Amino acid sequence: MSSTRSSIPRAAPAESDLVAAIQAQRGLVEDFFNTLALATKGNPGITRDTYGPGEAFAHRLLAEHGVARGLLVEQDLAANTYVTLPGRDRTAPRLIIGSHLDSVPHGGNYDGAAGVVAGLVAIEALCRLGVTPCCDVTVMGIRAEESVWFQVSYIGSRSALGTLPAAALEARRIDGDRTLAGHIADAGGDPDAIRRGARHLDPATIRAFLEVHIEQAATLVESGVPVAVCTGVPGNFRYPDARVAGRHDHVGTPRRFRRDASMAAVELAAWLDAMWEREEAAGIPMAVTFGRFHTDPTMHGLTTVPGSFCFSLDVRAYDPDVLARLETAMLARIGEIEARRNVRFALGTRASAAVGPVDPAISSAFTAGAGRLGIRTIPLGSPASHDAAAFAAAGVPIAMLFVRNEHGSHNPDEAMETDDFLAACTILADWICREVG
Amino acid sequence: MSSTRSSIPRAAPAESDLVAAIQAQRGLVEDFFNTLALATKGNPGITRDTYGPGEAFAHRLLAEHGVARGLLVEQDLAANTYVTLPGRDRTAPRLIIGSHLDSVPHGGNYDGAAGVVAGLVAIEALCRLGVTPCCDVTVMGIRAEESVWFQVSYIGSRSALGTLPAAALEARRIDGDRTLAGHIADAGGDPDAIRRGARHLDPATIRAFLEVHIEQAATLVESGVPVAVCTGVPGNFRYPDARVAGRHDHVGTPRRFRRDASMAAVELAAWLDAMWEREEAAGIPMAVTFGRFHTDPTMHGLTTVPGSFCFSLDVRAYDPDVLARLETAMLARIGEIEARRNVRFALGTRASAAVGPVDPAISSAFTAGAGRLGIRTIPLGSPASHDAAAFAAAGVPIAMLFVRNEHGSHNPDEAMETDDFLAACTILADWICREVG
Repeated sequence: MSSTRSSIPRAAPAESDLVAAIQAQRGLVEDFFNTLALATKGNPGITRDTYGPGEAFAHRLLAEHGVARGLLVEQDLAANTYVTLPGRDRTAPRLIIGSHLDSVPHGGNYDGAAGVVAGLVAIEALCRLGVTPCCDVTVMGIRAEESVWFQVSYIGSRSALGTLPAAALEARRIDGDRTLAGHIADAGGDPDAIRRGARHLDPATIRAFLEVHIEQAATLVESGVPVAVCTGVPGNFRYPDARVAGRHDHVGTPRRFRRDASMAAVELAAWLDAMWEREEAAGIPMAVTFGRFHTDPTMHGLTTVPGSFCFSLDVRAYDPDVLARLETAMLARIGEIEARRNVRFALGTRASAAVGPVDPAISSAFTAGAGRLGIRTIPLGSPASHDAAAFAAAGVPIAMLFVRNEHGSHNPDEAMETDDFLAACTILADWICREVG
Repeated sequence: MSSTRSSIPRAAPAESDLVAAIQAQRGLVEDFFNTLALATKGNPGITRDTYGPGEAFAHRLLAEHGVARGLLVEQDLAANTYVTLPGRDRTAPRLIIGSHLDSVPHGGNYDGAAGVVAGLVAIEALCRLGVTPCCDVTVMGIRAEESVWFQVSYIGSRSALGTLPAAALEARRIDGDRTLAGHIADAGGDPDAIRRGARHLDPATIRAFLEVHIEQAATLVESGVPVAVCTGVPGNFRYPDARVAGRHDHVGTPRRFRRDASMAAVELAAWLDAMWEREEAAGIPMAVTFGRFHTDPTMHGLTTVPGSFCFSLDVRAYDPDVLARLETAMLARIGEIEARRNVRFALGTRASAAVGPVDPAISSAFTAGAGRLGIRTIPLGSPASHDAAAFAAAGVPIAMLFVRNEHGSHNPDEAMETDDFLAACTILADWICREVG
């Protein structure tokens, strides 16, 4: 039988069989996470450094798993890893399930990796149920999502899609001098091809991109619900390397003579924080983060008025108009602070990511499937950026599921229960079986 | 003739002779400052590290000058250096002219050193005028005034007076592991004696302590006046090593889940800055300085909500009641911030310095003398702390003169004109001649 779903839909597996097929993957899940955690300790937490040894280990583990299970394994120009269960029609647009395998320094074990493992679980469940999908089902281990390392968003996914700006290849890793291009070459990729805009993935050949991710806040813990269906991925504007220049002065310098760079940054931060509080009160979700916020360690001291200050800024929201309005207001405010405090802001390179709308049909189907399977879900706007947004920007339908997680992410205490994770995998596999089974 | 001033006042030298005697010291002044600058380069600026090689060089230079000029040279328990012109009655309470010889890292050449050189100039002028003072006139090169190094105020002067708290000897230099006690021993001092409260200077044997210092702001530049007569030295309270503990979280964490240590510190800083603005507007001089203000460099990054933050705080004012009121209000505010933002402040060791009132008779005599000599002065509250305040706290009459200085202090661009400096030396020497000549 060689028909595709579009001609003659196959019957979906019985719900009890599906649940059993997913539950049978508990060993795979725990082994994969344990192996990852042991090999990528960050003391404290986990460090899978982008294009470094930690991330490389995770990609090797994924590739070795694929080879061991008789799946097709590939690597692309940016050293992203693909593990594919071939479909009945290998030319039909494929389904990609994926997420990133890097982490922030001293992060947790699940942020990113959970989405890759969810794809592997779904493929194993399809095999166990004897389902050969109508199209290829590919698990994608994505490089370089954690923008803390190169201060560039979605490096791996945009490289795969041919949408990474060439200038990004010149960014240097925050803890060294080597460029992104150099790191990609070291990992066996081809930075020159990326620079030319070559792509491994043609969006027209992708049926959908699905990403399972731990929730990065405590909404699900608070709600007592294991899984959320994503309603959207925020866009952002960022200034990763902003500076304020004033003048270093004696601690006793009177107010009218001061050019305190630190207090100027404090005023901006307090103003943006108050703005955020007002917007939220008005029902407009957003977030403001000054991740780095510091005086100059070579000059600062108890008795010196700070003459220089450094910060990074990330402002995110779900509506491009809100982002534009916030940035305009912020730039005006900076001008006022500069004039009043006699300092200069040098905001440095600006980066941004487009808002990532999710596919409403897939999201509704996730919710309906979960209801049928007796898994409680809530709708939830992603507070964080995700590779899925890079696929959405390229015109690929995307959807995401979030898994309950006890202590937030980007920290060593990140925690995910295997039961919650398998609940998300069940919703995912159910949809895959119905869609391409 | 062996009479003292209290019995038969001598005639003061003619003003023209005094001015000529001071002007004749221009070579001494320029040589001393040039030699200091060459030997204590901080790239940029000057670094005469407290109880380190930079400070040690300055003390050797002072002692060598004293020996070369046939003056008496001594070192005390804290390795302070004394260069004395013996008086007619060596048992009479003596006059001390002094300041510190250390600097902040990357500071300027004049902050501190100018007060020592002024003393040497005054002694040379007395000798040139043939004046043997009624009492000893001592130039004191003081150790360890710049509290950035050990985060303790007035180490050298309080050690000399026996008023340094014993616990201060356990402070470690900010750039190393060695204690203050160890550093004092290395410099040839006797930390055990300091710990026991032994003193080199009995306040009852000091007629007055006089300190010439560059102005650390631009009031004199703004006023077009070379010298100011100090009206008071501020007291302070300090928290050199305060920390805020929150939780490191993912950049996408919604507002209600955040425990952003950085934003809590921002709120405190913005509040204190607004408080300062209001007090100044109400005519109450004070200053607030967060000299260090920073996220944790081992954890911070573009995509992490800061879970830990460090800062130093110095709050100064001229009235002890104002200081007490400010600190009480600040501690209450910290409690509110902790509750609202779910963070904890650990303020760490508290330090303080008493307000240092100046002797009104000496200050008036400075002003009158300057008027007679045709040197313009203005009255000026010291914005900075000075060793003079430690002498005032011990009951010694103190007075200070500030010299115009183009670019503030505690920075490499500090600048002082020799003419302005000699104008201050003239006022000082005039007073000394009239008082103890």
